[in-house]
Amino acid sequence: MIGRLNHVAIAVPDLAAATALYRDTLGATVSAPQAEPDHGVTVVFIELPNTKVELLEPLGADSPIAGFLAKAPAGGIHHICYEVADIRAARDRLLAGGARVLGSGEPKIGAHGKPVLFLHPKDFNGTLVELEEV
Amino acid sequence: MIGRLNHVAIAVPDLAAATALYRDTLGATVSAPQAEPDHGVTVVFIELPNTKVELLEPLGADSPIAGFLAKAPAGGIHHICYEVADIRAARDRLLAGGARVLGSGEPKIGAHGKPVLFLHPKDFNGTLVELEEV
Repeated sequence: MIGRLNHVAIAVPDLAAATALYRDTLGATVSAPQAEPDHGVTVVFIELPNTKVELLEPLGADSPIAGFLAKAPAGGIHHICYEVADIRAARDRLLAGGARVLGSGEPKIGAHGKPVLFLHPKDFNGTLVELEEV
Repeated sequence: MIGRLNHVAIAVPDLAAATALYRDTLGATVSAPQAEPDHGVTVVFIELPNTKVELLEPLGADSPIAGFLAKAPAGGIHHICYEVADIRAARDRLLAGGARVLGSGEPKIGAHGKPVLFLHPKDFNGTLVELEEV
C-alpha cells in the first residue's frame, strides 16, 4: 500500500538558523521559506536526490507544531510521510486493521495541495505518520 | 555535501509486532529480521521505492537504543541517515563549521558494512544524524 517516502518533517524553533545549517554545514540544496498560514507553519524544503526533508517553523497562534516544540524546544523529527495511490482506500484498510486516523477521518488538503491524513502515533511505534495521495 | 536519504531508523520495543504492522496494515515490503550483534540491534528493512525505513529492536545488554526506548517505551524515530561521498572530508567540514561528531571522530563500520559517523543532536535541531559513505 505505502509507496515512496515523500518527506521527513523536522520541527525547528528557528527556521533561518536551521536552513543555514543544512545549506552551509551539510551542503544541501534548500528552498526559499514558504509560509503556509492554512497549516500553521513556514516550510523550507531540503531537496535530496531521492526525497526531501521539510523544516517546519510555527506560524501563527494555533500552529500544529507549537505543542511539539514546547516539549522539545531544540526541535526534532515531527513526522514521516508516505505516499499512497488512493487515500480513502488506504484509510479504510487502516481502520479495518484497527489503526486510528486523526481528526474526522476525512482527508484534508495538505501543504502540497494533495489529500492527506495523519495516523495516531500510538498505533505506529510512537511515530506520527502522514499519508499523502499522489 | 549530503546526498541521498539512506534511511530513517525507528526504534521499536517489539520488532515482530512492528514488522507485522508495516507488512499487513501499511502493506509494505519487509525483510527478514537481521541480528547485528556488533551494533546491539536486530533490524528489519522496510523497502520503499526510493529509500528505506529501518526498524531497530535492542539486542544484547549494551544496545545503543536501550536508553532511547527507556525514555520512549512505545518507540519513535531514532535517527536519519544521509549519504556522503567522502566521510572524512564531510567530518572535517562539519568540525570546521562547529558541529560535534559523536565518539572518537573516526568513522566506524556501520550496520551496512560502510563507514559511518553520528552527529550530535544538539547541533542538528534535536535530530540524531548519521552520515554513511557510499
